[in-house]
Amino acid sequence: MYEELRKRVYEANMELYRRNMVLYTWGNVSEADREQGVFAIKPSGVKYEDLRTEDIVIVRIEDGVKVDGEMNPSSDTPTHAGLYRAFPEIGGVTHTHSTCATAWAQAGKSIPCFGTTHADYYRSDIPVTRYISKEEVDRGYELETANVIKEAFIGRNPVHTPAVLVRGHGPFTWGKDADNSVYNAVVLEEVAKMAMYTLSITPEQSELPVSIQDKHFLRKHGPNAYYGQGH
Amino acid sequence: MYEELRKRVYEANMELYRRNMVLYTWGNVSEADREQGVFAIKPSGVKYEDLRTEDIVIVRIEDGVKVDGEMNPSSDTPTHAGLYRAFPEIGGVTHTHSTCATAWAQAGKSIPCFGTTHADYYRSDIPVTRYISKEEVDRGYELETANVIKEAFIGRNPVHTPAVLVRGHGPFTWGKDADNSVYNAVVLEEVAKMAMYTLSITPEQSELPVSIQDKHFLRKHGPNAYYGQGH
Amino acid sequence: MYEELRKRVYEANMELYRRNMVLYTWGNVSEADREQGVFAIKPSGVKYEDLRTEDIVIVRIEDGVKVDGEMNPSSDTPTHAGLYRAFPEIGGVTHTHSTCATAWAQAGKSIPCFGTTHADYYRSDIPVTRYISKEEVDRGYELETANVIKEAFIGRNPVHTPAVLVRGHGPFTWGKDADNSVYNAVVLEEVAKMAMYTLSITPEQSELPVSIQDKHFLRKHGPNAYYGQGH
Amino acid sequence: MYEELRKRVYEANMELYRRNMVLYTWGNVSEADREQGVFAIKPSGVKYEDLRTEDIVIVRIEDGVKVDGEMNPSSDTPTHAGLYRAFPEIGGVTHTHSTCATAWAQAGKSIPCFGTTHADYYRSDIPVTRYISKEEVDRGYELETANVIKEAFIGRNPVHTPAVLVRGHGPFTWGKDADNSVYNAVVLEEVAKMAMYTLSITPEQSELPVSIQDKHFLRKHGPNAYYGQGH
Repeated sequence: MYEELRKRVYEANMELYRRNMVLYTWGNVSEADREQGVFAIKPSGVKYEDLRTEDIVIVRIEDGVKVDGEMNPSSDTPTHAGLYRAFPEIGGVTHTHSTCATAWAQAGKSIPCFGTTHADYYRSDIPVTRYISKEEVDRGYELETANVIKEAFIGRNPVHTPAVLVRGHGPFTWGKDADNSVYNAVVLEEVAKMAMYTLSITPEQSELPVSIQDKHFLRKHGPNAYYGQGH
Repeated sequence: MYEELRKRVYEANMELYRRNMVLYTWGNVSEADREQGVFAIKPSGVKYEDLRTEDIVIVRIEDGVKVDGEMNPSSDTPTHAGLYRAFPEIGGVTHTHSTCATAWAQAGKSIPCFGTTHADYYRSDIPVTRYISKEEVDRGYELETANVIKEAFIGRNPVHTPAVLVRGHGPFTWGKDADNSVYNAVVLEEVAKMAMYTLSITPEQSELPVSIQDKHFLRKHGPNAYYGQGH
Repeated sequence: MYEELRKRVYEANMELYRRNMVLYTWGNVSEADREQGVFAIKPSGVKYEDLRTEDIVIVRIEDGVKVDGEMNPSSDTPTHAGLYRAFPEIGGVTHTHSTCATAWAQAGKSIPCFGTTHADYYRSDIPVTRYISKEEVDRGYELETANVIKEAFIGRNPVHTPAVLVRGHGPFTWGKDADNSVYNAVVLEEVAKMAMYTLSITPEQSELPVSIQDKHFLRKHGPNAYYGQGH
Repeated sequence: MYEELRKRVYEANMELYRRNMVLYTWGNVSEADREQGVFAIKPSGVKYEDLRTEDIVIVRIEDGVKVDGEMNPSSDTPTHAGLYRAFPEIGGVTHTHSTCATAWAQAGKSIPCFGTTHADYYRSDIPVTRYISKEEVDRGYELETANVIKEAFIGRNPVHTPAVLVRGHGPFTWGKDADNSVYNAVVLEEVAKMAMYTLSITPEQSELPVSIQDKHFLRKHGPNAYYGQGH
């Protein structure tokens, strides 16, 4: 029943591994089937080397409850569920502890748009959430993680900036499907590294002029996009 | 007709990929055939894993218009065309978003000549352009990119310093052919990394004495060069 | 007699090598057999490429004296022995000179808990010992290394923080067996890198709020742990 | 006649390449045959991928003149010759532009002995030479490179500190033979990286106490050495 969805989510998780974005069991990728109201996600605590398609767990978007699969879903499942509910436009979510993006999350700073590599994929900066409070931790840590992300996106279009840094934790990225969310996680790590190095050369560097930010974003994503082969 | 040119440009693009200079579809390499008044370039938005010789696009130097090939040429094609027109001595152009060279471009600083590794390949510093203005973006972003590079080379010999940082964007390098421009892109990334690390150790480091800069450049490139096997 | 123990220790040493945690002969892993009162450890000065199961040396926990094997045990053997005596709960010890963890040890700073990657594995900071004094060096350098570690863990639970930085030297990690101590060495190196990068972005960064530190540690290690498949 | 010497020097050069210490044609390794008064060295400007045993060039120690081989020897040959004359105890020399050691050379700072990884191989700091003056460049740049190294070792034992940073250029290392000089080049790069990271954490870090420096150096190299299997 969920064969195709499981295969795609398995492949996206393995792509994360092949791209050296994860150590051991860290990270997880999911993809939603909006019609069925479910998403498929990596099981908790399983090494990528040992992961099999049939281990992928199927969970309800509505409440994060498992509906199919043998294993426990990722402990971050309530965060994925919360993101699918908060952002109806997205079809895939990736979470990693990739080195440089996590360093920015730990440093409590959003990643400024210093260059066109950033602007090609993300409008304006990559926001960092606030810390989750003690009360929120007690109420439901993983679900509240989705809520602080939602809060950081008030007034932002999550499709135009498909990435966030959860303060003190690490990045979540998303996209139209699982594979696209992995792509955005890989790009984010590179953008985070470049931004860190940029500050090491010019500590007070300001952002790219908005006219260039717009140009790069829109030549790839705008109505008159002319990057690539699809037009 | 353009078989040999396409093969060389395909190979140079794949060399960029094998040297870990590019992520996904980023970067592009071209080579000019000055007699025919054309150059060959990577198609837009194609992953290196999927690239085939026949996908390479042939474009006129004069105006950047496609004259042969099925696919859309790189969106950076007007920049390549502009560089071939501005610098008649060059035969190949490479553009990357390689990590450290891009960090310098984002930091808005030219790379000082701190050592002999730099001096072996590039006379004086690697210049950074100014930002492209809003008016220039509107007029034709990619062509104006070539124009700010040209402006940064007033009073400089592009053959002696075959690299530039486009402010807020990333490096362009060039050479006698496509392969040589890739070589210069790989060397630039290493030089950029060394320079960044140099500043992290001695933030106020000044440039290499000119007598040593000259010695290293000229023992490889001067009329009495004695490096290598060709003399 | 020690066949199984030797095999496990051989495998754990080779895992350290495969994970790019060691150069040449650097580093060593051991595992204790508490019932027999011994531990098995890498021989001194042998390259990982040349290491064989039968080269692993068996040593008494009580006094670090060799009881079986042809080769000299690692010169760090008295430190391993001292740690097995100091921390009766542990079953494996790993020592490396991994780049970033060693940089923190050389910088004389404990690694603050800046994020959940750290909190998932280590309660509070990773402590750094004091320097070993001249008198202690003369008395028995390797054994005194265990003693300054012991001193740094007064009031700390070594099972909850299975890692230490020996000032001016490098990290020791431990765990329930050899393999687990290697795992903790690999995680430590990544945590050390992230923490160093965090400071480069926000030099005055403070630690993660304690409520989030507790949450992450306890969802993996507490009595109501819900991470993974084992509950 | 020089078959064995050529083979060893070929192998040592290829080891440098396999250890990712060199880009393209950069770097070179030589080994002396003191009885014959010659040394064997990499040819100039040849890529490691293309290097063959028979390309290795034989040169006189006395004056750096080629005595056997088809190709031009490395342009750094007079530096190697000068080092063999200055330091009669050494049998092999390696020159690289490895990233972090070169950054220290460019930053004009000797590498302080911050930790035991350094102390295991090098007594006290790794010295940096002064810049070669314009007059010296004109007189004979490569030979004067050997002379500034010699000057930096007045009062130092080159066997105890088998490495130097030539200011604004990069490292030279040496050892009892070619292979050992490559080993010292690989260790130096790691020590240089650790030292750079150490300063990024604690900018005013001071050196390791001398008693620990001595202990580590002497347990490997002193008359009562007990590291390894050879005693």
